[in-house]
Amino acid sequence: MPEVAKDRAASVKGVTTPALLLSVERVRRNISRLRGHLQSLGVPLRPHLKTAKCAEVARMVMRTAAGPATVSTLREAEQFAAGGVRDLLYAVGIGPDKLSRVLALRKAGIDLAIVLDSIHQAHAVVAACKDSQSRIPVLVEIDADDQRAGLLPKDPRVVEIGRVLVQGGAELRGVMSHSGGSYGQAGAEALRTAAEAERSAAVSAAAALRRADLPCTVVSVGSTPTALFAQDLSGVTEVRAGVFVFFDLVMAGLGVCTIDEIAVSVLATVIGHQTGKGWILIDAGWTALSQDRGTAHQVVDQGYGLVCDIAGVPYLDLIVTRVNQEHGIVSLRPGSTAKLPNIAIGSRVRILPNHACATATQFDRYHVLNETDEVIDVWQRFSGW
Amino acid sequence: MPEVAKDRAASVKGVTTPALLLSVERVRRNISRLRGHLQSLGVPLRPHLKTAKCAEVARMVMRTAAGPATVSTLREAEQFAAGGVRDLLYAVGIGPDKLSRVLALRKAGIDLAIVLDSIHQAHAVVAACKDSQSRIPVLVEIDADDQRAGLLPKDPRVVEIGRVLVQGGAELRGVMSHSGGSYGQAGAEALRTAAEAERSAAVSAAAALRRADLPCTVVSVGSTPTALFAQDLSGVTEVRAGVFVFFDLVMAGLGVCTIDEIAVSVLATVIGHQTGKGWILIDAGWTALSQDRGTAHQVVDQGYGLVCDIAGVPYLDLIVTRVNQEHGIVSLRPGSTAKLPNIAIGSRVRILPNHACATATQFDRYHVLNETDEVIDVWQRFSGW
Repeated sequence: MPEVAKDRAASVKGVTTPALLLSVERVRRNISRLRGHLQSLGVPLRPHLKTAKCAEVARMVMRTAAGPATVSTLREAEQFAAGGVRDLLYAVGIGPDKLSRVLALRKAGIDLAIVLDSIHQAHAVVAACKDSQSRIPVLVEIDADDQRAGLLPKDPRVVEIGRVLVQGGAELRGVMSHSGGSYGQAGAEALRTAAEAERSAAVSAAAALRRADLPCTVVSVGSTPTALFAQDLSGVTEVRAGVFVFFDLVMAGLGVCTIDEIAVSVLATVIGHQTGKGWILIDAGWTALSQDRGTAHQVVDQGYGLVCDIAGVPYLDLIVTRVNQEHGIVSLRPGSTAKLPNIAIGSRVRILPNHACATATQFDRYHVLNETDEVIDVWQRFSGW
Repeated sequence: MPEVAKDRAASVKGVTTPALLLSVERVRRNISRLRGHLQSLGVPLRPHLKTAKCAEVARMVMRTAAGPATVSTLREAEQFAAGGVRDLLYAVGIGPDKLSRVLALRKAGIDLAIVLDSIHQAHAVVAACKDSQSRIPVLVEIDADDQRAGLLPKDPRVVEIGRVLVQGGAELRGVMSHSGGSYGQAGAEALRTAAEAERSAAVSAAAALRRADLPCTVVSVGSTPTALFAQDLSGVTEVRAGVFVFFDLVMAGLGVCTIDEIAVSVLATVIGHQTGKGWILIDAGWTALSQDRGTAHQVVDQGYGLVCDIAGVPYLDLIVTRVNQEHGIVSLRPGSTAKLPNIAIGSRVRILPNHACATATQFDRYHVLNETDEVIDVWQRFSGW
């Protein structure tokens, strides 16, 4: 993080709303927490940069200015590469039409690895390697929990893909798994189980490759809940995690963090009251908060976000219950017996997000706060593909 | 719309995915349809620019290059003003801290009007007018359907606000109502009723102001469903509508448009299969499609969007059933007896959006298609506040 002169610090009162606030000390603490845990397990972090999409946050979370890091789009790869990151994993199954951009980055000296889970993709990668006289490094994606992409560890196509890649001149670098299902597993015991399933899937796929005399240097696992709750990472060579830098209400609902570890919030202004209905209207609708409803099926449904005062202290039972494009409707949680606070028109509130990745995507910058909630900097954020 | 040389036309096959496609002929037809309807009722359109946030689309939909038009953020007001639009309504209840930007635009010669629904805001506007020796024009927001902001037409505060504004040196220009509830009213009869409720609320509030010897030049109503289904707009001076330029699955579900009138779609690439689960994975997740679930409570739930082939023809019962940040999971609609189509990895599909405003917000440009689906231009789009 760049040093900021004290005389640049300013009150959040001067910020146009809606705006995305980032508490830099909370980010630091969140990073330390995961780093400490992984150090105790002896496995390095390959942080996922998709949550912040911001050069300054990337610098805080990466081990070195050159990486390693994980990205979810080639735009992220290109942007972070332009900022000096050299060691990147693009962790979404490769579309064959994207290989030309992968090759361009590799030609520029970036060690960009890709993932895939089909013979079809393996053949496309091999063809691209031949055309370009390049050796694209590949991780085979392994399905740890039936949630999205990947092959089961025992699926014979894992080895078959490995052979296609090696014989075709690509670099078979290893395997990766991601426990997306851990986002639905509340409590330490369930999260430890999810972490072990994620590890076990990747490690057994790696063993299958090695038994077939195929190389497998990298065994990559991760998600924020499993990274923080893993107790044993034997056989794993790196851990990926993204949202832990900011945390959010979904993570708090799982027991992965506490509310006061959440490092981002949306600053909004009260623009109306519908007193008879118990509504407070704010100038943050779905363009600001996103429509993520990740807490809808948790024990505590936080609506579209938990409402805090300007200092970041949550009001009792006050949530955003509805969003339109530029309006949010704030009211008490259904069933609450609390009293609706009297928040005057023009007052500022802060909304904690359900899902930090989704809410941050709605903004092109962070207003960076120090520990006394002064704005000490503005950091740019990018989007797109 | 700028003329495009024929030799610039290109295939959508060359577009990086995900991308937002815009069929310009459909936009033209959608605009003609609403214009024709309003001409028959003798009321002019003040189009809402929040859906497209694009200079070229604004030029197509506005009566003149100078407006009139409606916006949902001051960023829109500033951007469109910079492009030559002079007559603007900022149709979200004013936050007192935003008045300085309103005044700056007015000082630059833009006739920007604002809306409010409280004595508190009226006093803030009066104070700003006094400080700046300016007369900010105001519409009082009237609640037509209990959905969001506004005062009931018979609420004595309508007249009280009018008096505060007039006596304080602001310009009381009129009243506005918006039937947000019409988005939940399927079928012609229900939409006609919603349109009449919206008209009646605004017209009776206008009458109350006039009875109190207060001015009320403007009686502004509108939403896409009510604008298209209104049968009588007596007493109304202008109609606002936004999403009709693009239409979407929510509007189709209400009977406001047909599927083949929808003018925007998200181009995506197939990146994987989970054959056992009946899943096709695409490279469009919620960063591209948004998390809008506006069809969730309609008769036909379209998931996160309806899947079409590269030519825009919907597959039978094929929808996006789940989204992650950069992954979409495509599968058959629950209960469907259709056969999952065989769409190879690397193939392109097009996803029709639930809510065009929400999906368009996720992109910074439109790839503009002609009637034979060639890309004839790229139009920039903006976001933010």
